[in-house]
Amino acid sequence: MLITSVNNEKIRELSKLQIKKYRDIQNKFLVEGDHLVNEAYKSGYLLEVFVLDENKYDFNNVDKIIVTPEVMKKLSEQETTPDIIGVCTYINNTLSDSNNLLILDGIQDPGNLGTIIRSAVAFNFDILLGSNTVDIYNSKTIRSTEGMIFHINFVKDNIQSFVMYNDKYDYYIADMNKGVNIKDFNRAGKMVAVIMGNEGNGVSDATRNIINNYVHIGESDKCESLNVGVAASIIMYELGDK
Amino acid sequence: MLITSVNNEKIRELSKLQIKKYRDIQNKFLVEGDHLVNEAYKSGYLLEVFVLDENKYDFNNVDKIIVTPEVMKKLSEQETTPDIIGVCTYINNTLSDSNNLLILDGIQDPGNLGTIIRSAVAFNFDILLGSNTVDIYNSKTIRSTEGMIFHINFVKDNIQSFVMYNDKYDYYIADMNKGVNIKDFNRAGKMVAVIMGNEGNGVSDATRNIINNYVHIGESDKCESLNVGVAASIIMYELGDK
Repeated sequence: MLITSVNNEKIRELSKLQIKKYRDIQNKFLVEGDHLVNEAYKSGYLLEVFVLDENKYDFNNVDKIIVTPEVMKKLSEQETTPDIIGVCTYINNTLSDSNNLLILDGIQDPGNLGTIIRSAVAFNFDILLGSNTVDIYNSKTIRSTEGMIFHINFVKDNIQSFVMYNDKYDYYIADMNKGVNIKDFNRAGKMVAVIMGNEGNGVSDATRNIINNYVHIGESDKCESLNVGVAASIIMYELGDK
Repeated sequence: MLITSVNNEKIRELSKLQIKKYRDIQNKFLVEGDHLVNEAYKSGYLLEVFVLDENKYDFNNVDKIIVTPEVMKKLSEQETTPDIIGVCTYINNTLSDSNNLLILDGIQDPGNLGTIIRSAVAFNFDILLGSNTVDIYNSKTIRSTEGMIFHINFVKDNIQSFVMYNDKYDYYIADMNKGVNIKDFNRAGKMVAVIMGNEGNGVSDATRNIINNYVHIGESDKCESLNVGVAASIIMYELGDK
């Protein structure tokens, strides 16, 4: 199939996937560029691809639509238009039985979320996305994951009700200085769930009201705070094998 | 003083500071917003400020110039024009006697450099910026440091000649899997210097030719690599107190 008009109905529908509301309605999201499309394909989430060059890509059982650079530009959210864009189905995911958990309570920066997802895959943590956290299917988040969005176990849930109904974890708020230094942390037996708060305001009051255990990273008093993606990564690195 | 024209000669000169070449000629750089200007002032690097509101800011012995929103926009590199922009003198810096060292061999993303600087301050590492690394005075780098640019000890140097002439450190390349797992690392006695490579290509051949010791972060084989800012931070966190 060949599409040359940016006003083509299919293109107009798919370009709406740049907005969360329409992603949630269609249960689909877009990925741009070779690497992400390949990862989507290998993971079984790739529905169809839009390409500039008919001969450059071939995926079994995935529809290929040839488009003009103008159409590609309409679908793309990047300054430099990619050679390929893939349409993916929303990822059907559950938490694993054996992994620890990172709970994100209001992370707003898509780059931070992407970085956290890469680290969570590296250190065998699952992720719970609180309802006030940036969308995992945001295009900047997806790019920052470097494809790890297809390898992370994640769920979206209300943090307070999740904590109430899941007693397989011991819950800890990551704080600037309260609680146990993670170097001295010993797991009590249950899996560990660590809550990271918003970049500016930290963990929400609603969460603080139900969790009273804290962990912190020992650091110099010169540095007000680490980047939240770095802090989350260090905590997962340190607690992951305890 | 009041400046209302974007064509004012002073404003034209200062707006050139958005480009590295002109920063290096004038030995000055710009910082935007309350927090960074305050950090610059407290650290003694603030030369003058440009403000929209005459009554909002007051710094002892720092010239204050009132400007129009158009002039502020001309000086600013952000989408949302700030209330204040400060002109700072280049930071006169040396390495400390007691800190470990992080050597950056081709880090290209200004956000990554900023994140690394925050973490280095937190974990008492100094930084050597190799000649192929993004400029520390890049506006995105400065913003990502969250003010820690005024607290980090750093030098810019050719990595190969630095290594040749500085034997107070034991040098290690941060690798994906070669060498010692940082959890098992024991410092031999000297200070430690760890080299982080470029986001895509890793450590340069020139550096690999002169250093044969490696460290790596133990991680799941599902994750091709951590974000370089995260990897550098975890290494500094782990080696900082050994």
